Amino acid sequence: MSGVAFTVIPEGSITSPRGFSAASAHAGLKAGGAADVALLVSSASCATAGVFTRNAVRAAPVLYDADLLNERPGRIRAVAMNARVANACTGSEGFEAARAMAAAAERAAGLPPRTALVLSTGVIGVPLPVEQVAAGLEQAAGRLASDGGTAAARAIMTTDTRPKYAAVRVDTPAGAITVGGIAKGAGMIHPDMATLLAVLTTDAMAEPATLAPLLHRVVDHSFNAISVDGDTSTNDTVLLLANGTSGITPARDAALAAQFEEAVLHVARTLALAIVADGEGASKLLEIQVIGAPSEKAARDVGRAIARSALVKTAVYGADPNWGRVLAAAGAAGVPLSPDRLSLAAAGAEGEWLTLAQGGGTAHPEPARARAIFTQKTIRLRLDLGVGRAEAIVWTCDLTPDYIRINADYTS
Amino acid sequence: MSGVAFTVIPEGSITSPRGFSAASAHAGLKAGGAADVALLVSSASCATAGVFTRNAVRAAPVLYDADLLNERPGRIRAVAMNARVANACTGSEGFEAARAMAAAAERAAGLPPRTALVLSTGVIGVPLPVEQVAAGLEQAAGRLASDGGTAAARAIMTTDTRPKYAAVRVDTPAGAITVGGIAKGAGMIHPDMATLLAVLTTDAMAEPATLAPLLHRVVDHSFNAISVDGDTSTNDTVLLLANGTSGITPARDAALAAQFEEAVLHVARTLALAIVADGEGASKLLEIQVIGAPSEKAARDVGRAIARSALVKTAVYGADPNWGRVLAAAGAAGVPLSPDRLSLAAAGAEGEWLTLAQGGGTAHPEPARARAIFTQKTIRLRLDLGVGRAEAIVWTCDLTPDYIRINADYTS
Repeated sequence: MSGVAFTVIPEGSITSPRGFSAASAHAGLKAGGAADVALLVSSASCATAGVFTRNAVRAAPVLYDADLLNERPGRIRAVAMNARVANACTGSEGFEAARAMAAAAERAAGLPPRTALVLSTGVIGVPLPVEQVAAGLEQAAGRLASDGGTAAARAIMTTDTRPKYAAVRVDTPAGAITVGGIAKGAGMIHPDMATLLAVLTTDAMAEPATLAPLLHRVVDHSFNAISVDGDTSTNDTVLLLANGTSGITPARDAALAAQFEEAVLHVARTLALAIVADGEGASKLLEIQVIGAPSEKAARDVGRAIARSALVKTAVYGADPNWGRVLAAAGAAGVPLSPDRLSLAAAGAEGEWLTLAQGGGTAHPEPARARAIFTQKTIRLRLDLGVGRAEAIVWTCDLTPDYIRINADYTS
Repeated sequence: MSGVAFTVIPEGSITSPRGFSAASAHAGLKAGGAADVALLVSSASCATAGVFTRNAVRAAPVLYDADLLNERPGRIRAVAMNARVANACTGSEGFEAARAMAAAAERAAGLPPRTALVLSTGVIGVPLPVEQVAAGLEQAAGRLASDGGTAAARAIMTTDTRPKYAAVRVDTPAGAITVGGIAKGAGMIHPDMATLLAVLTTDAMAEPATLAPLLHRVVDHSFNAISVDGDTSTNDTVLLLANGTSGITPARDAALAAQFEEAVLHVARTLALAIVADGEGASKLLEIQVIGAPSEKAARDVGRAIARSALVKTAVYGADPNWGRVLAAAGAAGVPLSPDRLSLAAAGAEGEWLTLAQGGGTAHPEPARARAIFTQKTIRLRLDLGVGRAEAIVWTCDLTPDYIRINADYTS
């Protein structure tokens, strides 16, 4: 996000980088004929990295993909996706269903075996209707297009109200590299339970061995910064596919490598923020900056503790500048704090910072100004722990009655 | 809760054990003249144990009490309490205010210095109006009564809708021992942020050295079983005062010691369950039994992860038997699980268990029966991890639109 030169591509997505095509289809899983499966295909083998859920209950597609990426991280050609059924908690039949879905994608796109990854999202514990999904993928394969990425983004929506896609182009002396992505995820009040799926693509050349650590760093500062990463869903998956069609290898040059990583981070963060802004029932975006921390991990842990506090989130919903709740949530993060060195400030999306609390005590802020900040759609909090130089940013949204309405009855 | 013989005392509280008296008064903190301070006094010095918040931001009364109990655990004579102002995040002035409140209680009750503990609950970051509180304690001291415990329970209520008190009598060959208690706590959807205060009293004789570990064990199976203990509020405190006026020393006899501990546990659990049932906006009680765990800690961690899942709690509110969310929440507990050995069953307050999921997969339960269970006011879940013999129980309530209404605007 620093001063790196890249160009945002309007309506860009996973098909913006060269050599990628995609399409969606209706497989009968969603009501009303809406697209519910999607297929992404690369014209060349991709070096691929994946970041998967840390949940002890891993869905079948996660198990399948982790296994395949372990075996052939340089040979991926496609990603098959479906919504409505998560294929999680489905036992060994579920694993066979994931395998069959991958095989169906490979057949439909005329690809060799073991070249397609699979992503599923939806209700847990329901068997995947493999034949329907296979028929849908067959249809999608027949209409693959170099502008099909946004349709794929639509197909994987569950309680999302908007499709999420983004792409940027990096211009280098040797030519352009493009990075694109799509994502879904909506139960973001407690993202630990929501399924977050994201697919990132690029036409850069890369080795799986450099791509994997890059993706982990990017995810830490994007998808993992929108909430608690220790508490993930059964299906969470972020994939990064590099098909090399640009002929440019960022890893060969340190400056270019940094520029490439910034571009991937920009796309990932754009998608992550779109997920928060579209959180179930969300009416406001809360950005939590933790500075002055002894380590980045400490900063992130404190930020996440604030981000997951129902009392902080309801206060944000109610435009109530209840700073004591923020300090109490920070104190519960499991990070040693010096209460008398804490300092908390708030601001809107733009505008000046207002100190709410200092030295662990009351800062006697101007109540009208504090309330005016909390009334805005985007609220920024900056908590200085006063003990170091590390920092982290975490984003979340407010907790609203709509969240409860959406989640009180989902399966039926 | 096992077959131990004790008698529940109707309307029993902290003043049920001999030698304790209590009263409340209005110090001008609550609107409308409601009692907002309370004073508990013992006729004899008490061996006293305390369990305090693990929050890194500790309120002034917590700091004061921990220090006093460290210095004089056998010399406590009184507990002074107030509602509306938590005296948390109030810096060194806050600590002086806590000290002044204790001194005021000692003066009012004619006790030696450093014999009174203090408890505060309410809004964080607001200075304690010490003179008002002192005047209130003075009034309360003038009307101390041996049936004043329930009035004290009323005075410490914040968003509680009901006062919480309980007492039991244990009949032994040497005579009777009585254990009583009061508590407050209401933001129990996320108890990590609510202030939980509890005072337990007994006329048993005890040494501080035996009382402290007993109280920790009791709290683990009562107040800490209603949610995440690593995430506590700035003020959480549970005190146990033993004034010895019964002349009976439970620790001298193993069977009697066990009986005494069961009695303390019964009172603590009764108060803890009353807190959950009175959780902010709560309409249902959820009991989560985790069995077949490799250790009690693992069982408790899994239970707590389920108890704090907003998706589980909204499903309970919506009477939706969405068992996938329960398994996903369990998987996020940070405890290694074998998904194919998991088994989940549900029941109402009474009645048969219905298996919802088995072997990590779909159990194809009867949807109508499952929904009938989830429609009840009390829902019990039993998750068998299938890998050991340890178990734990955790209680929580549902997450409702009322919770958000209550918390969206609290300070103002």
